Amino acid sequence: MTKVKHMHDFDISHVRRAAALLQGRVVRTPLLESPMLSQRAGCRLLLKAESLQRTGSFKYRGALHMISSLDEAARRRGVVTFSAGNHGHAVAAAAREAGTTAVIILPDTAASIKVENCRWWGAEIVMYDPHKQNREDIARELVSQRQLTFIPPFDHVDIMAGQGTCAIEICEQLADLAVRPDAVVINCSGGGLSSGVTEVMRHMFPETAVFLVEPSGYEKMARSLRSGVPERLAEPPRTLLDGIGGPVAGLMPLQVLKRHAVTGLSVTDDEALVAMEQAFRFLKLVIEPGGAASLAAVLAQKADFTGKNVVVIASGGNVDGAVFVKALQREA
Amino acid sequence: MTKVKHMHDFDISHVRRAAALLQGRVVRTPLLESPMLSQRAGCRLLLKAESLQRTGSFKYRGALHMISSLDEAARRRGVVTFSAGNHGHAVAAAAREAGTTAVIILPDTAASIKVENCRWWGAEIVMYDPHKQNREDIARELVSQRQLTFIPPFDHVDIMAGQGTCAIEICEQLADLAVRPDAVVINCSGGGLSSGVTEVMRHMFPETAVFLVEPSGYEKMARSLRSGVPERLAEPPRTLLDGIGGPVAGLMPLQVLKRHAVTGLSVTDDEALVAMEQAFRFLKLVIEPGGAASLAAVLAQKADFTGKNVVVIASGGNVDGAVFVKALQREA
Repeated sequence: MTKVKHMHDFDISHVRRAAALLQGRVVRTPLLESPMLSQRAGCRLLLKAESLQRTGSFKYRGALHMISSLDEAARRRGVVTFSAGNHGHAVAAAAREAGTTAVIILPDTAASIKVENCRWWGAEIVMYDPHKQNREDIARELVSQRQLTFIPPFDHVDIMAGQGTCAIEICEQLADLAVRPDAVVINCSGGGLSSGVTEVMRHMFPETAVFLVEPSGYEKMARSLRSGVPERLAEPPRTLLDGIGGPVAGLMPLQVLKRHAVTGLSVTDDEALVAMEQAFRFLKLVIEPGGAASLAAVLAQKADFTGKNVVVIASGGNVDGAVFVKALQREA
Repeated sequence: MTKVKHMHDFDISHVRRAAALLQGRVVRTPLLESPMLSQRAGCRLLLKAESLQRTGSFKYRGALHMISSLDEAARRRGVVTFSAGNHGHAVAAAAREAGTTAVIILPDTAASIKVENCRWWGAEIVMYDPHKQNREDIARELVSQRQLTFIPPFDHVDIMAGQGTCAIEICEQLADLAVRPDAVVINCSGGGLSSGVTEVMRHMFPETAVFLVEPSGYEKMARSLRSGVPERLAEPPRTLLDGIGGPVAGLMPLQVLKRHAVTGLSVTDDEALVAMEQAFRFLKLVIEPGGAASLAAVLAQKADFTGKNVVVIASGGNVDGAVFVKALQREA
């Protein structure tokens, strides 16, 4: 496979190659709709249920794509990443699927269920004390000592291309429905998903408006798009939307997103909880708070979607029972 | 379309014709699996998520198939049924999709949300007092006075063929995975779904064992298979599994099921709640109690599924938030 040297080379052809590589190895997640929910939203809402992807989030696409794209020797030596969330879980599972092993670096404060999840897939867990140690240093050491390949959460073309494969499916599913999308609404943190999806959607439907959704008060990508450089949050975000609450926007995703006119939106915890309840009621889906941000932005009318065909990506479904109960017991 | 005159004529060809007619008009629901959940079950579990079907249950397939198969004049005159549950909702929605209208006969005790659901699709609601009136009489009157077509919940070949289309998809999805099923586990009430699915699965995979799952204490189909005639429950069932708690087994479904060696299983409310929690956690799906009975039967080891490839059909997802909360707050 040709390697992308410069970000301006990154285009739909990379995503298409990734889709071919992942064919049959990822869930072709359904694009669902509910006329009742659409009526509430005031538009035709088409929801891509990436919550049904393996490991419960779109992260599996990028992880499996990057690991499968390694040369044979590198793949055999194994991979390493740090993440107690969806990315770590996805890397652990994708490594097993690709016939290798992953080292997952976790803070010793990580919830035991997250540690068990990674270990279940055969990953090696390296614990560190977040007050005394730096996870980047530990990763660098493992890369140099054991020649492992670091799998970044978003800042790599193979990750961006992998995440973008969900948009290839969306385009095929829209064609089956004979629908042209007026807007696509994407949850955004580092930008791996949104850059890959935006590149595909704008290629296929140049007139489609692209919206990125971030947690209210922590709009690092919107700020990065204004400043032109990746912005970092000043402090750890206090938000239920942990799936899109990472510390920094990605440089490569930012370079791709800058090429397109994209609009930043944001939603509150409470708006996300409402969206989770509506997805439960009308679509029978379990969506995590950060995964429901895109749906929340449409339901809360953060832009004018009236009468439009709107694709929202529900990016993940990994939510604790207690948080889900909170969403269901909220008055809609 | 040739009409089925005798039940021994009902075979996979009817289901295949139904599938062709429904192509693109129903959700091709995913066949999902979670290695973690499979490990807990002790077998390879493949779950057909009919909870993601339009109106939240497989019932939409049969209703749309039967209404679409009516001759033009009958279709225009409209249809009628009685059901406050998944069948009524499905008939209301399918009638709109087929360009006609439905009359739904509901007891005046029906929950207002169920009445609103049917009305939302444009159905006409006829209320009756269940202490003084008989719904069958009201339906008969509407059929004769307004020449409406009655859409039965299960006892009709067009319904059975429509419900069976989910098994045509299952067979295609299994072929994509290169998996042969050792067992298929189906929720059963009147038998519309189980007869259609059994006919397809046993044709494609004659060696596959078929299991029907009913609410514990209310195994009317298992009893009917033993007695050879449709058995009726002596009293309204006290079960959370209301989706499979109807009063009587269907004659035509029974005739089909009798041709095959099928095994009856049953599950308790509590076992269904456990299965709902596991589907939430590992598959990110919302499944209603009756829809989760098949999964519950496998997780509770109601037969020996060890090491086998087991297809379970999660037949619906229409569950109140309060009941779902009960499942999540149960200790697994």
